[in-house]
Amino acid sequence: MSTTFLGLGAMGRALAATTTAAGEPVTVWNRSAGRAGRMAGTTVAGSVPEALAGDGAIVVCLFDHASVHEVLDPVAGAVRGRTVVNLTTTTPAESRELAGWAATHGVTYLDGAIMAVPEMIGGPGAQIFYSGSAEAYGTHRALLERWGASTFFGTDAGLASVYDLAMLTGMYAMIGGFLQGAAMLAAEGVQASAFAARQVPFLAAMTGQLAGYAATVDDRDYEGPGQQSLRFTDTALAALRRATAEQGVGGDVLAPVAGHVRRQIDAGFGDHGTARLFESLRSTR
Amino acid sequence: MSTTFLGLGAMGRALAATTTAAGEPVTVWNRSAGRAGRMAGTTVAGSVPEALAGDGAIVVCLFDHASVHEVLDPVAGAVRGRTVVNLTTTTPAESRELAGWAATHGVTYLDGAIMAVPEMIGGPGAQIFYSGSAEAYGTHRALLERWGASTFFGTDAGLASVYDLAMLTGMYAMIGGFLQGAAMLAAEGVQASAFAARQVPFLAAMTGQLAGYAATVDDRDYEGPGQQSLRFTDTALAALRRATAEQGVGGDVLAPVAGHVRRQIDAGFGDHGTARLFESLRSTR
Repeated sequence: MSTTFLGLGAMGRALAATTTAAGEPVTVWNRSAGRAGRMAGTTVAGSVPEALAGDGAIVVCLFDHASVHEVLDPVAGAVRGRTVVNLTTTTPAESRELAGWAATHGVTYLDGAIMAVPEMIGGPGAQIFYSGSAEAYGTHRALLERWGASTFFGTDAGLASVYDLAMLTGMYAMIGGFLQGAAMLAAEGVQASAFAARQVPFLAAMTGQLAGYAATVDDRDYEGPGQQSLRFTDTALAALRRATAEQGVGGDVLAPVAGHVRRQIDAGFGDHGTARLFESLRSTR
Repeated sequence: MSTTFLGLGAMGRALAATTTAAGEPVTVWNRSAGRAGRMAGTTVAGSVPEALAGDGAIVVCLFDHASVHEVLDPVAGAVRGRTVVNLTTTTPAESRELAGWAATHGVTYLDGAIMAVPEMIGGPGAQIFYSGSAEAYGTHRALLERWGASTFFGTDAGLASVYDLAMLTGMYAMIGGFLQGAAMLAAEGVQASAFAARQVPFLAAMTGQLAGYAATVDDRDYEGPGQQSLRFTDTALAALRRATAEQGVGGDVLAPVAGHVRRQIDAGFGDHGTARLFESLRSTR
């Protein structure tokens, strides 16, 4: 089976290169032809219909949800009966919308979310989440496993994307917090690398505590023993705020967290554990 | 030498208990007498001057900077020539102010910042940072090592506190991001523990990337190869925002980070790596 790759950004290239390196036939297409021309070992298609001439999975890795429609809508007829594996970053609702579009056009749809940077594709650290068609996941499993360790979350096409975005939220929050900490130390003449040497093992150790937070959330057991109270957290966050103000360091990365802590305390939950923040974060009010 | 402990909150108790468990003479004092009375194996002092009758280090673990002055100012004469190890949570400026007060009164001052919860004191995971008097750190090293792995950052009394607060910034940011991710999955009926099983190893792996961010910051090499551009990060953060809005999940924990990303892009740095956020976070403008 020849696999089609639509979209050759850094990620699309990494996926196609890993596939062709395994000796599988690959057809590639990119909106701007230059990028496709530089991919050794692949059949370069001059148009989307030409790229669809093969018989394998159609792997889509484009800029966003709108680009997926721009590329697939005009060829809906040619895609009928085929399988689309969409690895474009989309929201859960966008993934579900595309699954609906696929169902309408007789297309088998598998949504994927890549938990890796392009350089990691095909290596041991890459993880890819899937949801949507269980049949497509089973049929193309060998192809998917070439790119990274794959996990199937179920037939709701939006689930892979929810997991992806939820995990990225933790990652970007951690990066933001790290860089603000680096700014605090820079104000005292300390290099970021000296800070990282301390912060990295500390954060790695602290990730272990998140499972405890999760158990508390699942049990709604915010008054159980051994928890750090919201009042204590509030005092610590106030010290952080005073310190950055004294230092003239900007960017209060923790302002929304501090706001939610205050809201829970004002609602009478100061003695509850800090995992109670979950209750504040889950509601839009 | 008999060590004096002023303040028996959860942390003060843990420090005193670990010391007395090692067979060392300990004198304790607490503002409310009840707590001190329950500490086995210690000499309970009825007043601060009485607590200072010994000859060892004076370990201070109180509520905040103001409480340290409230307790020590009236006994400044009795503390002259002695060593104060202050483990109260303070900002860098507050630690330096206390070091100045100590110098004025002929007191040797060591400032400490505890990277652990009380239950961890005396165990393998506890880390304590120190700065201030190198002589005090050397003389009392055996005492300090009983509580946790100790590190001395230099004679600037504020440095231990800067490291402490900078590291807590990363930790609270990570916890906030994790709980917001849990809220996103809860909106889809997924338990927080199922999320943690994925998020914990992912974040632990991603902590390794922070050293790379730090090297980029130290070299101010935001245009070097292999970096995730601010424009790409902006697109990812926009997807996160759309997803939480679609889900009706509140608490935009990443709003300040997203704001700084926008500011750097608007300043013309969209193609620079995301570590450039450091430049935005370090300045108050």
